[in-house]
Amino acid sequence: MATIIPLEQKPKRNHSDALDTLSHLVADDMNAVNQLIVQRMESRVAMIPRLAGHIIAAGGKRLRPILTLAAASLCGYQGQRHRKLAASVEFIHTATLLHDDVVDASDLRRGGPSANALFGNEASVLVGDFLFSRAFELMVEDGSIDVLRVLSNASAVIAEGEVLQLITTNDSTTSEQAYLEVVCAKTAELFAAACRVGAIVAARAASEEEALRTFGLNLGIAFQIVDDVLDYSAQQERLGKTVGDDFREGKVTLPVILAIHRGSEAERAFWKRTLDDSDQRDGDFAHAQDLIRSHSALRDAIDRARHYGAIARDALGLFPDHPVKKALLDIVDFTIEREF
Amino acid sequence: MATIIPLEQKPKRNHSDALDTLSHLVADDMNAVNQLIVQRMESRVAMIPRLAGHIIAAGGKRLRPILTLAAASLCGYQGQRHRKLAASVEFIHTATLLHDDVVDASDLRRGGPSANALFGNEASVLVGDFLFSRAFELMVEDGSIDVLRVLSNASAVIAEGEVLQLITTNDSTTSEQAYLEVVCAKTAELFAAACRVGAIVAARAASEEEALRTFGLNLGIAFQIVDDVLDYSAQQERLGKTVGDDFREGKVTLPVILAIHRGSEAERAFWKRTLDDSDQRDGDFAHAQDLIRSHSALRDAIDRARHYGAIARDALGLFPDHPVKKALLDIVDFTIEREF
Repeated sequence: MATIIPLEQKPKRNHSDALDTLSHLVADDMNAVNQLIVQRMESRVAMIPRLAGHIIAAGGKRLRPILTLAAASLCGYQGQRHRKLAASVEFIHTATLLHDDVVDASDLRRGGPSANALFGNEASVLVGDFLFSRAFELMVEDGSIDVLRVLSNASAVIAEGEVLQLITTNDSTTSEQAYLEVVCAKTAELFAAACRVGAIVAARAASEEEALRTFGLNLGIAFQIVDDVLDYSAQQERLGKTVGDDFREGKVTLPVILAIHRGSEAERAFWKRTLDDSDQRDGDFAHAQDLIRSHSALRDAIDRARHYGAIARDALGLFPDHPVKKALLDIVDFTIEREF
Repeated sequence: MATIIPLEQKPKRNHSDALDTLSHLVADDMNAVNQLIVQRMESRVAMIPRLAGHIIAAGGKRLRPILTLAAASLCGYQGQRHRKLAASVEFIHTATLLHDDVVDASDLRRGGPSANALFGNEASVLVGDFLFSRAFELMVEDGSIDVLRVLSNASAVIAEGEVLQLITTNDSTTSEQAYLEVVCAKTAELFAAACRVGAIVAARAASEEEALRTFGLNLGIAFQIVDDVLDYSAQQERLGKTVGDDFREGKVTLPVILAIHRGSEAERAFWKRTLDDSDQRDGDFAHAQDLIRSHSALRDAIDRARHYGAIARDALGLFPDHPVKKALLDIVDFTIEREF
């Protein structure tokens, strides 16, 4: 409807903006959650808060605890139980990150040295276990068996997902279905559980808990697919972001799976050498990007992500208009429409 | 590339055409399977072949055993083991149909009287059990533990799916995720198992078995979504097909879920009355169709189906060109692009 073109173009909103809006809506709760996180990673063993603090302070977006707070707010919850449970969700997530880095033998996490690189594998494993236990302590303090059921089940599924991912790494014959099962387990399940917990504390009807589970699960799938796309994105490379980590680690993600299924025998031999046999040479990553581009694999992977985004959006239809609802819908859009 | 417009328009190909092409490619095997089916439903209890014959002869498309035969053919299998296993797959499917009709208290199946209407519920339940057992006998004769594992697991999942469907029937608050879980369990899992069995008898690499599992599962999801769409389709109604069965039985399928999530409070009250409370009046089905149309729910449900179709198509990318591959790809397209 505007007829005047502004001189300065408004910068394109991105995923972080949408997350900022949502964070802002739950800011008081989030401050309390951050305090809880700092308190509850305390231990008389000094190395524990040092190591845990390293990863917790390392610029994570706190997306999962924000989802718990937002879901509770959307459900009209007025109490404070969701704060402890949001901290619990973040501890579960952090514990899996610590264990992940050990499994992947990663030296970097979010652009800085990873905990295992600084403190050693043994310490990372044990502090991960410590955070898992703290997560369960927080849930037990809250005392809801329903919450314990949802989050303990999610933790088991995440662990299964990590094992499944181990099996699919360095296996260029991984199917799209197996990839999706890994994504559901290792990423989407905790998104779903984080959202469900918000409905549980608000004592809402099963239908709303189900709607939030559907929202979280499908947002999580879309989020992970887009993350996997960004790791091959030339656009990200131009923006100075790190790309190619998955390729170097031999992870078989959706862009690669589509390129492999659509590629020639010679192309499959390339993927086998670089991913299965971990035999990577100069220029291989650029060639991988070329192959992926030639099969429209990034575009089509984003299309797949849009499908899950559409399911997540429809799931919120049950809830009346609310600033948090709008922000959650924006998170879906901006998760998918990130620059790739 | 054609520049001449033909005077007579070629009739639009449909799902049955694509299935005919595929049947034709495995015709010898399919004749043998049909003979096996007739032989193996024999029993000295005369009512068993009579009742089983009623449903098996009732014009089923034999889609699932055809998938087993086609998958084996695509994998270059030369033997005859797939015939027994295809019959086994059809017996499992038929058994679930018999039990389904009892659960739904259906009087009609494929346009004719259902077995339970003709022979009574008890007989339908028991003949279903008989066919399940025959299915397992056929597998045991074949002797492959891998096949037994895949099909026994699929049978358990189907039974879970039926129970899950019982829970979601007459519950208009069913989430899209719960619907998808029902569809995967009650329909897609047997499609996936039927395809996998073809790869197993051909002793192909795990990657091809996985590709066929992915193909079958996603074809099955797309198939069921489209089936659920057709039950509300005005176009089908114009073609003289039966519509509205799901509505009358209070089944909560994807078109309804989308309409409910996108609808007003008043609309949700309508769905609650008609589906949850089974209070249906003249004109309610037409009103249901109007609501579904006003929220673009059929179109968007088909869009969701297209996503699963795309995954199924990509899964076959691993296989070289082959008439069976082309026919399977056509089945995906025609499954989704049926008149709705």
